[in-house]
Amino acid sequence: MIGILGGGQLARMMVLAAAPLGLKCHIYAPEGDNPAFDVAAAKTIAPYEDHAALERFARAVDVVTYEFENVPAKTAEILSSLVEVLPQPCALETTQDRLIEKSFIRDLGLAVPDFIAVDSPESLSKAVAQLGRPSVLKTRRFGYDGKGQVIIKSETNLDEAWAGIGKAPAILEQFIPFEREVSVIAARNALGDVVTYDVCENRHAHHILTETTLPARISAETEQGAKDAASRIGAALNYVGVFAVEFFVGVSGAQEFLLVNEIAPRVHNSGHWTIDGAETSQFEQHIRAISGWLLGSVKRLGRIEMRNLIGGDTDGWHDLVTEPGLHVHLYGKAESRPGRKMGHVTRVTI
Amino acid sequence: MIGILGGGQLARMMVLAAAPLGLKCHIYAPEGDNPAFDVAAAKTIAPYEDHAALERFARAVDVVTYEFENVPAKTAEILSSLVEVLPQPCALETTQDRLIEKSFIRDLGLAVPDFIAVDSPESLSKAVAQLGRPSVLKTRRFGYDGKGQVIIKSETNLDEAWAGIGKAPAILEQFIPFEREVSVIAARNALGDVVTYDVCENRHAHHILTETTLPARISAETEQGAKDAASRIGAALNYVGVFAVEFFVGVSGAQEFLLVNEIAPRVHNSGHWTIDGAETSQFEQHIRAISGWLLGSVKRLGRIEMRNLIGGDTDGWHDLVTEPGLHVHLYGKAESRPGRKMGHVTRVTI
Repeated sequence: MIGILGGGQLARMMVLAAAPLGLKCHIYAPEGDNPAFDVAAAKTIAPYEDHAALERFARAVDVVTYEFENVPAKTAEILSSLVEVLPQPCALETTQDRLIEKSFIRDLGLAVPDFIAVDSPESLSKAVAQLGRPSVLKTRRFGYDGKGQVIIKSETNLDEAWAGIGKAPAILEQFIPFEREVSVIAARNALGDVVTYDVCENRHAHHILTETTLPARISAETEQGAKDAASRIGAALNYVGVFAVEFFVGVSGAQEFLLVNEIAPRVHNSGHWTIDGAETSQFEQHIRAISGWLLGSVKRLGRIEMRNLIGGDTDGWHDLVTEPGLHVHLYGKAESRPGRKMGHVTRVTI
Repeated sequence: MIGILGGGQLARMMVLAAAPLGLKCHIYAPEGDNPAFDVAAAKTIAPYEDHAALERFARAVDVVTYEFENVPAKTAEILSSLVEVLPQPCALETTQDRLIEKSFIRDLGLAVPDFIAVDSPESLSKAVAQLGRPSVLKTRRFGYDGKGQVIIKSETNLDEAWAGIGKAPAILEQFIPFEREVSVIAARNALGDVVTYDVCENRHAHHILTETTLPARISAETEQGAKDAASRIGAALNYVGVFAVEFFVGVSGAQEFLLVNEIAPRVHNSGHWTIDGAETSQFEQHIRAISGWLLGSVKRLGRIEMRNLIGGDTDGWHDLVTEPGLHVHLYGKAESRPGRKMGHVTRVTI
């Protein structure tokens, strides 16, 4: 029995991948619209701070994993005192805080955008003087899908920017005029085996992923460099499970270069294409890794185009479902809201 | 919400196929080891004869389907008075009784082994005199995986054979010295659209399917003939959902010929390869058909080898799971017994 913190679409797709391996899942999530409940063998509805519920949950499962990186430290601590938590809570600690995360990546010898810690209007002002404009102010913690970010443009008032991110501990980051955004989905098991999927090219709108295509339009060296970076990050974190590394690809002269943007210590939206477009999906790979199985083949089956269905996008896909190579995935969410990920569609062209 | 009668692996794989379409499932099954419960949004544990439970179930779902053909007539009647049942109960009536089934197929102009109704020791004796030995005595109803069958060999005592099938209404069937057994998985929706997958070649041991391979080693004409026969059967039954047609392939001189063996009005073991080896699985196709969706592409993705994991066969597959193109499916059954289908493995070679 695999315990999963979180009841959204990532947890749901993990459950659907665990089932063919003969494994059952127990979902732990607070009250709300939790589409993973519909396919889970067991569920606990409780806040992440409910110690008694966490203890009962830990005792009912053989291993705990999660679908989101912002698991409270106390939650992870309670669980890991009773049951194995994978990926290990220390990976969460590293990736939950942008300052620690970027320092960790830089210390591995991997390129990241320049960054400076900011914790007051004064330090923000000094940092902007150093990195120039435009630059990007990001909270150290709890940012996702563009939340907790402000671009410091030439006209931006720094006090307003500081207020805009809630005056929280932050970093100022060099603005990278990138050519494209790419990511690597990687998996690592307890034996230290690592597999990396082909590099995904990602497009965003309003900071939300809209489309992933493969192969990415990058050179073979850049492709290999991104995979190597992911492998090194996985090894350095002694990581067990699936993770994603997001990169900016820039061009300097005739030369492509990679900068690591961030690490997501979980299955990742840019890896959804692997369900239909790779021999082993990222979800199955994650379940294998945390369950002590060997990892599966990451072979890509064709050219890939994955589109998120956001808000009302799910309307109208019925007519396309007869198209060969097109695979529809709806998450079964009760309510559609603007910006909400309702499903995705993958086209595999062989 | 899709209601499914039966909680075994076929129901389980239907649920897993329904989820990506955003559809939930409610499983109705009697007490027992029901692996479909582990992935279902709702469940009813009750006998198939419990009228009150059937009525509550019917009111809780939008459509009812089933994983096995021996749904009691009264159960189907109660359900279909309250909710749509697909495939339609009349398809069950035709296929539940070998005499009706074979007459139906013959009346469509399709070849079947010769058969004679048997309902007494006297009529058995007359039938054997007519069809000769060897021939096969089969109960009209409730036969599966070789249960309810006796081969009448030269030395077989007819009274013992008659006792051996429980003195139940039966047919005596011509013994066909076939070259191979093949099947066609087909789907038909309410619009009358029909799709047929490529022909599967099947091997059995002790009347239980052990292996399915594609392409089948038959001529292009035989392949097309089998698909055409399945389409005609689907149309004649006004069928909605997935069904399988099993054939014997014989050789007469240099000429291959097809005889219909039986119709299975449900997803079928010989179609399990479609999960990994076709663009749309038989399970998704069934859910699409009964949910009013258009049907999906049946394109085969490579050469196929599907093996059932029976009894203790599940041991040892862990070491093979890194093989590219190999997909393991375990059904999560609580207990392994000799002859019990515990999972299957599909190898897709591109």
